[in-house]
Amino acid sequence: MTSGGDAAGMNPAVKSAAEYAKKCGMEPYLVEWGLRGLIEGWIHAATSERLSGILHRGGTVLGSSRSKRFFEYQFRKKAFENLEKMGISKLVVIGGDGSFSALNQFHADFGVPFAGIPATIDNDIPGTDYCLGVDTALNMIRQSVDCIRDTAASFSRAFVVETMGRHCGYLAMTSALATGAEICLVPEIKYDLDSIAEKMRLEKEQGRRYLLAIVAEGTGMGESLTRWMNDALGMDARLTVLGHVQRGGSPTVYDRIMAFKFAVAAIDALSAGKTNQVIVFRDGTFGNIAIGEIADIKHRVDANLIELCEGLSR
Amino acid sequence: MTSGGDAAGMNPAVKSAAEYAKKCGMEPYLVEWGLRGLIEGWIHAATSERLSGILHRGGTVLGSSRSKRFFEYQFRKKAFENLEKMGISKLVVIGGDGSFSALNQFHADFGVPFAGIPATIDNDIPGTDYCLGVDTALNMIRQSVDCIRDTAASFSRAFVVETMGRHCGYLAMTSALATGAEICLVPEIKYDLDSIAEKMRLEKEQGRRYLLAIVAEGTGMGESLTRWMNDALGMDARLTVLGHVQRGGSPTVYDRIMAFKFAVAAIDALSAGKTNQVIVFRDGTFGNIAIGEIADIKHRVDANLIELCEGLSR
Amino acid sequence: MTSGGDAAGMNPAVKSAAEYAKKCGMEPYLVEWGLRGLIEGWIHAATSERLSGILHRGGTVLGSSRSKRFFEYQFRKKAFENLEKMGISKLVVIGGDGSFSALNQFHADFGVPFAGIPATIDNDIPGTDYCLGVDTALNMIRQSVDCIRDTAASFSRAFVVETMGRHCGYLAMTSALATGAEICLVPEIKYDLDSIAEKMRLEKEQGRRYLLAIVAEGTGMGESLTRWMNDALGMDARLTVLGHVQRGGSPTVYDRIMAFKFAVAAIDALSAGKTNQVIVFRDGTFGNIAIGEIADIKHRVDANLIELCEGLSR
Amino acid sequence: MTSGGDAAGMNPAVKSAAEYAKKCGMEPYLVEWGLRGLIEGWIHAATSERLSGILHRGGTVLGSSRSKRFFEYQFRKKAFENLEKMGISKLVVIGGDGSFSALNQFHADFGVPFAGIPATIDNDIPGTDYCLGVDTALNMIRQSVDCIRDTAASFSRAFVVETMGRHCGYLAMTSALATGAEICLVPEIKYDLDSIAEKMRLEKEQGRRYLLAIVAEGTGMGESLTRWMNDALGMDARLTVLGHVQRGGSPTVYDRIMAFKFAVAAIDALSAGKTNQVIVFRDGTFGNIAIGEIADIKHRVDANLIELCEGLSR
Repeated sequence: MTSGGDAAGMNPAVKSAAEYAKKCGMEPYLVEWGLRGLIEGWIHAATSERLSGILHRGGTVLGSSRSKRFFEYQFRKKAFENLEKMGISKLVVIGGDGSFSALNQFHADFGVPFAGIPATIDNDIPGTDYCLGVDTALNMIRQSVDCIRDTAASFSRAFVVETMGRHCGYLAMTSALATGAEICLVPEIKYDLDSIAEKMRLEKEQGRRYLLAIVAEGTGMGESLTRWMNDALGMDARLTVLGHVQRGGSPTVYDRIMAFKFAVAAIDALSAGKTNQVIVFRDGTFGNIAIGEIADIKHRVDANLIELCEGLSR
Repeated sequence: MTSGGDAAGMNPAVKSAAEYAKKCGMEPYLVEWGLRGLIEGWIHAATSERLSGILHRGGTVLGSSRSKRFFEYQFRKKAFENLEKMGISKLVVIGGDGSFSALNQFHADFGVPFAGIPATIDNDIPGTDYCLGVDTALNMIRQSVDCIRDTAASFSRAFVVETMGRHCGYLAMTSALATGAEICLVPEIKYDLDSIAEKMRLEKEQGRRYLLAIVAEGTGMGESLTRWMNDALGMDARLTVLGHVQRGGSPTVYDRIMAFKFAVAAIDALSAGKTNQVIVFRDGTFGNIAIGEIADIKHRVDANLIELCEGLSR
Repeated sequence: MTSGGDAAGMNPAVKSAAEYAKKCGMEPYLVEWGLRGLIEGWIHAATSERLSGILHRGGTVLGSSRSKRFFEYQFRKKAFENLEKMGISKLVVIGGDGSFSALNQFHADFGVPFAGIPATIDNDIPGTDYCLGVDTALNMIRQSVDCIRDTAASFSRAFVVETMGRHCGYLAMTSALATGAEICLVPEIKYDLDSIAEKMRLEKEQGRRYLLAIVAEGTGMGESLTRWMNDALGMDARLTVLGHVQRGGSPTVYDRIMAFKFAVAAIDALSAGKTNQVIVFRDGTFGNIAIGEIADIKHRVDANLIELCEGLSR
Repeated sequence: MTSGGDAAGMNPAVKSAAEYAKKCGMEPYLVEWGLRGLIEGWIHAATSERLSGILHRGGTVLGSSRSKRFFEYQFRKKAFENLEKMGISKLVVIGGDGSFSALNQFHADFGVPFAGIPATIDNDIPGTDYCLGVDTALNMIRQSVDCIRDTAASFSRAFVVETMGRHCGYLAMTSALATGAEICLVPEIKYDLDSIAEKMRLEKEQGRRYLLAIVAEGTGMGESLTRWMNDALGMDARLTVLGHVQRGGSPTVYDRIMAFKFAVAAIDALSAGKTNQVIVFRDGTFGNIAIGEIADIKHRVDANLIELCEGLSR
């Protein structure tokens, strides 16, 4: 099942998990519409027809949902009865930490083991260096920003691009580095507009004609930075809010291959008798962390990345 | 020279005009940074090196500008002296009607003939059915909206996409048709939110799970429609503001071929002794209109297109 | 129904035809797998679910086939009985002239009126200036050729790109113009390699470092031209055969809008009592031609286009 | 300097290396046209203008070459004198192992230290898990194959896609996994067509309608496998030869970030007094290997990947 916010890579993960489970002698099923589907019993055998033609599609063909009812025991019980009826004894859930917590409670109630595959474009699930969907999101942002550069070079102008990321600036910072942005504002770094203004004035004197700023949604600075560029820098500035463009798009090769590896690790963990583990990718290797331990890990963005971006915030 | 807002197709038009001019025995030059470049004398011979590798690039490699100084006679005189010095006797300007008017005044002052090639993604220059850059802009919008659809189908959600178009809803309307949007708000059509709400409620009852609205910038409705969807329709709604993403991108084949044909028509018009003409494309054929007559034509969006989109505004 | 070789724009045409038919008070059905589906009775009501999410997909979700059995009366009779049983009295077929002829025979046998929408990336159906799928195919080719240019400029090299087009060089010629190819070989134009070699040697002396040639499949020259470039021009040459990459890809805006207009014209023709007409687009306007007359029209590529490309074949 | 076959990521590496060198107090220069440029003295200061607008471009803006003259002492001497004249004391070369060997000899002759950044889409440089350009090439292949899938699903057909890779099947194998190909032939794995035919016949009986095969260029099997599919499997089969499409395209985010990290590691190695090292990325970490040791390492493709693809070769 897929759950929480959608991310590219969910479909390849669904396909890989089902196919690898078959190879391991299991009988895989697909849950539609996430936790809500568990409660309603929207569950189907993972036939070849259902798995065919989904590898290259963005979003999740299974659908997702945010189900408040799953917080109530009576609905979790209903979900458990659905699984029991169909003879389903293990779960793979592809989603974020909210979904993992929900299934941890479900495991506590009814003893159904699960393995979680981290998937969110924010890349902010503690314990793993990578979450499915991030590489695709970054490349969607890159394509948009490269298009803006085309036009930036034709004029004396400033551009502000707002990326997703409510609490985490990973997308914004990595995009800023990858596209050569001059300014980057994220929740993790304290910015100093006066110092930026000073620097930009200097660069304009030395011939700089256009400016590109990348701002994480969580800073709430998209509109005000655009106005500031007009007022303080005297440049015709324009805002682009990428929104859900970042979530869509066909999964990149990296996301497809990672989806495959996460899926194999998830099935292997369940086969090995693990009960409530999140599959993580750290320092180039796959491993598991018990969901309970994840709660104690504080998510931290790569210190190196933050250091590089500090120069773009001041 | 290119002038005014940049648009994909400007580079192929520059290349085609220069190469065709050479074939006709002329000696072409390139003016950099638009009207400002005329005044400053930023003018170079159109050598093969300068024309090579530009066909597929977005924006304009010549640069553009909005020059207030060109309104003053003394600066126009300076521009004329620059041309005289270099032996340049005719101009091809790729841009919008503001630029055409400026050059019309220049012609009135100094008798320098020019041919205008309409280029603006708004597709709102009177007298022509097509302006360079429109097809590329539409396909940039389509790609973004298709990405959003990927993710829309995974959730019960509403999406609002704001396109460019201050006074003209052509981009928004055509995109709405091409992407199957459910709602489209443009300056040309009076909308009725109550009626839309009524219709959407009915469709939700019949199983509709997500909504896509396309809004032209000129309506100023991007943010308020998004809030309205949250409040009145009870759907988690999200805004995407495409901004300059629409201006960029490599020119499509249609824009490159049209650029070529516009350029040939422009050189032919100058060769035939025309003095201040805009090249237009109407009902499938290329022709010229004297710039003076253009002022009298009211730009009108295809009535058929408006009729089709009325159903998306009520 | 869709029939014959697949082309981008078929899906939007299916969707538009079904939706517009509903608006006109008809009850539309979808035939799967083309003529074979007619015989087998693979026909379903065109529900919203079946029409949803197909607008942006390449190929044809209905499937297609090349059915020899349809040449035999007994199988056509079976097809007719299927239609009769379901109360289907009119057909819209999206495909090529082979499919139109087949349905013309079907009309002669059983009096079932049909309207044909021309769709083939070869753009070689007589009587119409445009066939669905061409704009998308051209842009797929453009993207590939632009990628090759990236790398061409880094080295002293020659590239040969083979496009589709068994009898018609439209794709190759238009792509050559749109990408600035130096050489273009198509079935319509007699080429002269000695003269090309002479010209290229001159250009190399003047500083040309790389060469791009576009060759239509129908010339059968892909491999031999590549070898010739190695041998006669002394350049490291490499062949790219685009194959079905050209048929795929999400339909461009132009193909989607044309699909819509073709579909409306097809339904209107059937509503007006026309019986066996192909919808055509000529000189910027939609019209119908009786299928019988089409047989008498010789397909001719735009003489202007051929003239432009003659310079690339000698 | 860039040298050898071009690869996406070279431009970001050039830009990053020059900018980081400046930060470290060095004075960076750019060598044009690789080894040939060293000999001819085509060397310029790395000004901001030269480094601007290159980050997102495919290929290498510096150009590359394969210079036989560099094997001769007299020309290497000339190259050394050029460097001496300009006060250049260290080299960063972005390319393949041929280029590294050439510079190793140069170091032996004249003591000029260098750091090599591995860049080749074949991903076959011993000692490193990743070479610049691979991620971009894989995504170019993915996009082409996804387009082919669009059309595959519309018909009963077989498709053969030939990727680059003379000795190494990395691109073909990874693409096969990422696109869900049914058949994959590479130099590293012995294939068995009879066994494949058997398997495909079974799958056709179970409803499979189309087949996708990915073949590495080095197997020389593109054309013959296509014919075999027609003959032995009775499927209408078609070949696509991707050619240099794979080398081009704007660098992906992964290639841009890796380019940055490789560049930093290269400058750091030179600053630390290393003399003839290749920068490598192994098990998630950057390091150096002396060029002499590289010669002793046998390049081996990930055994895991080969195992996964064995099932697609039999």
